[in-house]
Amino acid sequence: MSKIPATPQGITNSVKIPDFVRSEEDGRPREECGIFGIFGNSEATAHTVLGLHALQHRGQEAAGIVSFDGARFNSHRSLGHVGDHFNTERVVERLKGTAAIGHVRYSTAGEKTLLRNVQPLFADLNVGGVAVAHNGNLTNALQVRKRLVKSGAIFQSTMDTEVIVHLIATSPRAALRDRVIDALLQIEGAYSLVLLTKKALIGVRDPLGVRPLVLGKTDDGGHILASETCALDIIGADFVRDVEPGEIIRISEKGVESFKPFPAVKSRFCIFEYVYFARPDSFVEGSSVYDVRKRIGAELAREQPVEADAIIPVPDSGTPAAIGFAEESNIPFELGIIRNHYVGRTFIEPTENIRHLGVKLKHNANRASIRGKRVVLVDDSIVRGTTSVKIVQMVREAGATEIHMRIASPPTTHPCFYGIDTPRRDKLLAANHDLESMRQFIGVDSLAYVSANGLYRATGEANRNAQRPQYCDACFTGEYPISLTDENDNNTPAQLSLLAERA
Amino acid sequence: MSKIPATPQGITNSVKIPDFVRSEEDGRPREECGIFGIFGNSEATAHTVLGLHALQHRGQEAAGIVSFDGARFNSHRSLGHVGDHFNTERVVERLKGTAAIGHVRYSTAGEKTLLRNVQPLFADLNVGGVAVAHNGNLTNALQVRKRLVKSGAIFQSTMDTEVIVHLIATSPRAALRDRVIDALLQIEGAYSLVLLTKKALIGVRDPLGVRPLVLGKTDDGGHILASETCALDIIGADFVRDVEPGEIIRISEKGVESFKPFPAVKSRFCIFEYVYFARPDSFVEGSSVYDVRKRIGAELAREQPVEADAIIPVPDSGTPAAIGFAEESNIPFELGIIRNHYVGRTFIEPTENIRHLGVKLKHNANRASIRGKRVVLVDDSIVRGTTSVKIVQMVREAGATEIHMRIASPPTTHPCFYGIDTPRRDKLLAANHDLESMRQFIGVDSLAYVSANGLYRATGEANRNAQRPQYCDACFTGEYPISLTDENDNNTPAQLSLLAERA
Amino acid sequence: MSKIPATPQGITNSVKIPDFVRSEEDGRPREECGIFGIFGNSEATAHTVLGLHALQHRGQEAAGIVSFDGARFNSHRSLGHVGDHFNTERVVERLKGTAAIGHVRYSTAGEKTLLRNVQPLFADLNVGGVAVAHNGNLTNALQVRKRLVKSGAIFQSTMDTEVIVHLIATSPRAALRDRVIDALLQIEGAYSLVLLTKKALIGVRDPLGVRPLVLGKTDDGGHILASETCALDIIGADFVRDVEPGEIIRISEKGVESFKPFPAVKSRFCIFEYVYFARPDSFVEGSSVYDVRKRIGAELAREQPVEADAIIPVPDSGTPAAIGFAEESNIPFELGIIRNHYVGRTFIEPTENIRHLGVKLKHNANRASIRGKRVVLVDDSIVRGTTSVKIVQMVREAGATEIHMRIASPPTTHPCFYGIDTPRRDKLLAANHDLESMRQFIGVDSLAYVSANGLYRATGEANRNAQRPQYCDACFTGEYPISLTDENDNNTPAQLSLLAERA
Amino acid sequence: MSKIPATPQGITNSVKIPDFVRSEEDGRPREECGIFGIFGNSEATAHTVLGLHALQHRGQEAAGIVSFDGARFNSHRSLGHVGDHFNTERVVERLKGTAAIGHVRYSTAGEKTLLRNVQPLFADLNVGGVAVAHNGNLTNALQVRKRLVKSGAIFQSTMDTEVIVHLIATSPRAALRDRVIDALLQIEGAYSLVLLTKKALIGVRDPLGVRPLVLGKTDDGGHILASETCALDIIGADFVRDVEPGEIIRISEKGVESFKPFPAVKSRFCIFEYVYFARPDSFVEGSSVYDVRKRIGAELAREQPVEADAIIPVPDSGTPAAIGFAEESNIPFELGIIRNHYVGRTFIEPTENIRHLGVKLKHNANRASIRGKRVVLVDDSIVRGTTSVKIVQMVREAGATEIHMRIASPPTTHPCFYGIDTPRRDKLLAANHDLESMRQFIGVDSLAYVSANGLYRATGEANRNAQRPQYCDACFTGEYPISLTDENDNNTPAQLSLLAERA
Repeated sequence: MSKIPATPQGITNSVKIPDFVRSEEDGRPREECGIFGIFGNSEATAHTVLGLHALQHRGQEAAGIVSFDGARFNSHRSLGHVGDHFNTERVVERLKGTAAIGHVRYSTAGEKTLLRNVQPLFADLNVGGVAVAHNGNLTNALQVRKRLVKSGAIFQSTMDTEVIVHLIATSPRAALRDRVIDALLQIEGAYSLVLLTKKALIGVRDPLGVRPLVLGKTDDGGHILASETCALDIIGADFVRDVEPGEIIRISEKGVESFKPFPAVKSRFCIFEYVYFARPDSFVEGSSVYDVRKRIGAELAREQPVEADAIIPVPDSGTPAAIGFAEESNIPFELGIIRNHYVGRTFIEPTENIRHLGVKLKHNANRASIRGKRVVLVDDSIVRGTTSVKIVQMVREAGATEIHMRIASPPTTHPCFYGIDTPRRDKLLAANHDLESMRQFIGVDSLAYVSANGLYRATGEANRNAQRPQYCDACFTGEYPISLTDENDNNTPAQLSLLAERA
Repeated sequence: MSKIPATPQGITNSVKIPDFVRSEEDGRPREECGIFGIFGNSEATAHTVLGLHALQHRGQEAAGIVSFDGARFNSHRSLGHVGDHFNTERVVERLKGTAAIGHVRYSTAGEKTLLRNVQPLFADLNVGGVAVAHNGNLTNALQVRKRLVKSGAIFQSTMDTEVIVHLIATSPRAALRDRVIDALLQIEGAYSLVLLTKKALIGVRDPLGVRPLVLGKTDDGGHILASETCALDIIGADFVRDVEPGEIIRISEKGVESFKPFPAVKSRFCIFEYVYFARPDSFVEGSSVYDVRKRIGAELAREQPVEADAIIPVPDSGTPAAIGFAEESNIPFELGIIRNHYVGRTFIEPTENIRHLGVKLKHNANRASIRGKRVVLVDDSIVRGTTSVKIVQMVREAGATEIHMRIASPPTTHPCFYGIDTPRRDKLLAANHDLESMRQFIGVDSLAYVSANGLYRATGEANRNAQRPQYCDACFTGEYPISLTDENDNNTPAQLSLLAERA
Repeated sequence: MSKIPATPQGITNSVKIPDFVRSEEDGRPREECGIFGIFGNSEATAHTVLGLHALQHRGQEAAGIVSFDGARFNSHRSLGHVGDHFNTERVVERLKGTAAIGHVRYSTAGEKTLLRNVQPLFADLNVGGVAVAHNGNLTNALQVRKRLVKSGAIFQSTMDTEVIVHLIATSPRAALRDRVIDALLQIEGAYSLVLLTKKALIGVRDPLGVRPLVLGKTDDGGHILASETCALDIIGADFVRDVEPGEIIRISEKGVESFKPFPAVKSRFCIFEYVYFARPDSFVEGSSVYDVRKRIGAELAREQPVEADAIIPVPDSGTPAAIGFAEESNIPFELGIIRNHYVGRTFIEPTENIRHLGVKLKHNANRASIRGKRVVLVDDSIVRGTTSVKIVQMVREAGATEIHMRIASPPTTHPCFYGIDTPRRDKLLAANHDLESMRQFIGVDSLAYVSANGLYRATGEANRNAQRPQYCDACFTGEYPISLTDENDNNTPAQLSLLAERA
Repeated sequence: MSKIPATPQGITNSVKIPDFVRSEEDGRPREECGIFGIFGNSEATAHTVLGLHALQHRGQEAAGIVSFDGARFNSHRSLGHVGDHFNTERVVERLKGTAAIGHVRYSTAGEKTLLRNVQPLFADLNVGGVAVAHNGNLTNALQVRKRLVKSGAIFQSTMDTEVIVHLIATSPRAALRDRVIDALLQIEGAYSLVLLTKKALIGVRDPLGVRPLVLGKTDDGGHILASETCALDIIGADFVRDVEPGEIIRISEKGVESFKPFPAVKSRFCIFEYVYFARPDSFVEGSSVYDVRKRIGAELAREQPVEADAIIPVPDSGTPAAIGFAEESNIPFELGIIRNHYVGRTFIEPTENIRHLGVKLKHNANRASIRGKRVVLVDDSIVRGTTSVKIVQMVREAGATEIHMRIASPPTTHPCFYGIDTPRRDKLLAANHDLESMRQFIGVDSLAYVSANGLYRATGEANRNAQRPQYCDACFTGEYPISLTDENDNNTPAQLSLLAERA
């Protein structure tokens, strides 16, 4: 490969959080996403539909697929779930080809996604077409975008991902792989990418490996890139290995090639993927998510024991930790809260007048396992705390005599800028309250979090290495490993709202 | 009340199942449903929306509400979930009034519901408007329908419920309540009904009380009728009591009145509501569904013990029994199968070619809790067995060394004709196989069911009373307590397909 | 055929108009409609789609088709135009059969048609299924409906047509044809009907023959019934003859049979079909509509001559009369008003603020043929006069030096109760104004109408026979030939609004 | 203004048509369009909706509007008619502002427009946002596009218009007006443009003035740019003047400024706008379209007289010429062909089997004015001739004894490359047939066209100036006044099909 000055931007040991943090209303897309790519398979699009379906928990608002059929790129993008808009023979029929990439996208509550902001992005470059799908968040996207617009670039979306496409397009290098490297050297942030060209499927993970990406293969010799292993399971593909931080994988007729254009740095995988985001049946970075969660529950039971009659998970994400807690504490595990499976994200409480009722659209207390008991509620995390207040009240009304809350992560004190949507800092309960005032706010008899060391132990580490933490845990510690360039530029929300169009 | 010769039709101790059983393709609507009614509440429709939402598990294909606003009846009916089509201010605004009834409807796979078959039904009678919603199934509906058509009645739907409306319309009696009694005396089957007139909300449960119906009240003096208590919980209403078998409840400005026009017979509540159908957080006939299910699991662990490393529920209905089994057997409870929450009923496997792959749209095995272990799979029932085969294969491929299946109900050997959709008898695995051949078919190392007595014990009975069973358990025993008139009339499917219209 | 006491109801020489006339807001469906039926043709539904398309001018709001395929009745009904919802292979494919009937429906402005009010109606009677489509209006429908409801009938629509179906259903006679006759003897009003049974296509025209109905045949021996001959032209069928007033045509495998169960009375065809409603390329009652309209224009030019520079039609219905006027007067015919072909019925003027501008959504003046000229505007009729005011103002602003308006019918002084939607009497300009005040209101230099005798001469009559008029001309004379029973019953609008449901 | 070397590209006296002409299937958008812009009006969007509605005949497939509200650009784009998707209060409400531009777009039959190809285009440039709407066709768009892609530009559509946007974006000049001039100097073709920036509405007409553009003003001091005067009429605006060929109009708070950066050349307005494209009530280049058409009919009657009984227009575009022909020849004008107003573009003949019937979806012969007569059919032009064949056959079957066809333009022998969609040359009837073989093909007794000089005389010229024709008449003569660069580059259709996406 060609020589490229290889200095990935923006990686630091720790940066201070700027005073101005992005508000929920700034119109900036801060999605968590799932990505999938396949090469060398006669049912490329059908497999991509299934893979995206398995990754649906990483983004439910929109989905898109681009395939290449040897002559043309074919594309379908839609708001809504994969199962609603992609699993038809008509769509699969139209997206012909033996290679494809796909994307599922999450969006913040209340923000309406525009169809033009649905990935994969496609561009017809001088060297041929290229499609890109991205999981993560670039922290200098606005800075780069301003520079590109100044030189005449025209953006069609408001997504940070589009700056990557423009950097590839305007790179002076010849080979697409070199253009990609050229582009990556100019961006900062957390990213896992899949790119599709006429010749190859390319996968990229940022130098710190913040977001996951795995390599798999199918029986017939095809190869797959996906955010999580559950996307391999659904199509019966085998797990090969994690893509390494800073690695570029190129899958083509020549087979699988690996490039590492960046200087090696210690990786910082997002520990919140273990706590909440990844699916429990996935293996990430070598560990079972389910096992890690159960071990967090066991750590919590040891660190913060309590006398009680029932261990009750807050469904569904608190369940594995609750099982671990129950096993370790030898207190019965009970389904004390029943989740209503028919609630979509869009269920609106019907009228102003009855909104004050403690309306229980998503959950109902299971009186039979609560009434007259001392219960431990196990949840994965507390963000704003407003949901916890309602759940505790519901459990109290169902007749619990004592309620103890145990949280399977340290207090969430800082927002994420690397691809997980979190509220701004002043909305984070733990950023502004000490433990006792949180306990009072939530209304429980006791409240306790697992320690950072306990969390690290559950992942298999001896302890958190304070000098050089093994994970990105900025949301618990405020130690951001990658520069927050755009945040520190004091950009206003208005600078990002370019055109109020709706598709 | 007026004197009416009170001989409810068709109740028997036991009838033989006819040779001809209704096939899935006969076009006959055989839904399980949920019903809700409210009277004397200023937010009648908004509460009905919430109540139906809580009953959504009883029917996901269509929903409808009729309200009365003092001058007019207002109605909205829609295919799809309550949360998708009713929770808008526009709909709630339009369905004005202080009284309303609602209905959710289940339909068999592959059968497309016509909008005209969505309840509540409404008719403008000589005595004023009446709306009806029905949970259950009439077993002489076709016979009565033929008689009515002969005398000039015109039917607008293919629903059995419409015969009730016509019988009310043509009754010679004056008062609506007497007309309803008159109508009920002519029908056979299982039914819980709610009716709305200009003056009253009326609730009815059939003489055997096969389907559930509960009475609740709101803080402001309003009254509610609903299929299950979870519909009271969601709106913060209090449970008053179960409506009794054969009881007619009339709620009006005069308050709550009770009528029992039928001679008293011993009740036969549907035991399958405990096993599978009702929500675990509901109380039916005085017992917690969750507790009964856990006790079934414990009975099963005592009756059919097995040495193993993990107790794994088949989600979601097997979970409470699995918890009971794990507690009783002291074997760890593990989430060994992860359910994909984003699968709608409509997800179609994308193409013919990849359909042979063991595609796992709904579930994935959680390898971490299965690999190298002897596992017990706990499920609520086996109907055709085809799903069980796939799940066992998936668990086997995930590395289980032994798989033992334990079923929280006796073998399902007979179809239900009283309101729960089941396949015809020749499709029921247990109707045609002995235990060993079922074990081989499903591919497990051992297979066992709870006994009928074990099931009855879990509900609080000492044992099943063989002479006069405490429940309707025809699906396990073939002892049908109500005549199957239409089945024995040798009607052909064609007789029921009147007009192939789609709305 | 069987003996039936044959006294058609309600036919009079002249009745007085009741004080209470139906308002536009009374919710009562008063559509003008088009009907079509075909028997013995392998492409029955495809031909019906085309036939309804040719009759689209008779009703644009909704359409429906019912076919019979030898075993089942198949139906499709939809709001909107035939071309939008019926001309797909999927619909034609589904509506199999060699016989079919169809209906297009007009609805009053602002009234939203419910899908359940779209024809053909279908009912499954004791003697088999029957579908009905109706053009016209029954004048005692409410009276009959009340009687039927009292005896237990349940209505599914608010259409007058449904009383016919119920009367057929409850008739004590055996043969369907006798049941139909039995039903017709109980109804009053204007009606042309097509009915489809398993064995036959039946066509009926009321004793006075107020609404049109023609018989046609296809090359392959099939037969057709349609409102106008243009529906024969579109499918290349041949015109056989008009169905006669009071005649019942039965088309079956036995061929075409004719019955005349009513005593012969002198016919009273609707003269407004010539003036406005029928398509100019149709022949009705033996005359070309286009020719009659041109002759009306010529009569008008003779009766009401004027010195002018250009004869300008108000498009499109005034065009043939304007051509006749121009020819007779030897003044140039000019397109002085250009119609915008892209205006649907639903174009709403965008905002309150600009509504006061003389917004010209439908028409624009063609300055080049108006400026500096004395023009004659020729229109078919004036109903409320509001449109005329706007058109005159537009023509004036375009530079006309004189504007003379000539109307190709006598003044419209009375509403129609026989199937053409007209406003109530107090909204009819000519009912409340003399000629001079109308001229001032409309703002023209002169205003003149053709005389009743002139109109009759244009149709080929010598003169209007005042004792026994040859046509129904109640809208010009107030002489209603059929009783207005419901109107005289003082029914309130509320009595007709049964259920505020929207499909 | 700044100095810019002003040499508009590509204007020639005459160029030869290349051998390769664009096929219908090449995926290249060759729409005829309508444009509208307004500045300084408080109801900018509402007026734009009305203006586009008046221009709907110039493009029915899609429409779009961009407004500027002082802070943001707001946009709405939709497939379908303006009246269907824009005239709602919600849309008008959302597109706030006192300035707006809009576009209606025509697309070739069978080609499905992508939403991303709907104008106006919007781009956020370094100097601020700019929206562009275009009527015409660039003849070197592909050449420029290739150059831009080579330097890293990313295109979001397949429209030629987008090259203008990119040229503006990458211009080294500072002021937007100078950037626009810079861009225009690099493009060839026919174009009328409206551009909207934060400060101004800009209108441009190409140096030859091939496509129309007029300037108007409203009572309250606002200004309007529109393709035709009928768009001024609909909102009651006054016509000011035609924008001149090569003129740039800038409307801002400073008022109306005019720039002429190009060297003056003799104009070549499209003569086909008079023949067919413009609305008859519009004035273009100073003349009434209706008057020109009537004069063409009169010229034709003088040049090609015929003995006959009726002059019949082929609706609707042949009507004015037929009136002129009838007046000049003193033969009666008759509506011999009735157009069905309810045919949308999408009406598909229902099934294969009946497609061979001469199905008359759009027109029907009016027998009454044809039977037994010698008729003259007057049409505006013959392109492929296939429609003429069907119409002649229909008129023959209706009983005409002789049929003479008279065409109100010279034979169409060459395709248009300047913005009017025409088939490629080998599909043009007159390109491959002499008059006699055309007469036989169409099946008439005589066939004649107006002469080129006759056509020019009807527009007010003395004669066609063969050395320097006063109009672009390439479709009749093959003398193309602007270079056909892309056509001569031998680009393949495949080069233009970039991505088969459907929105």
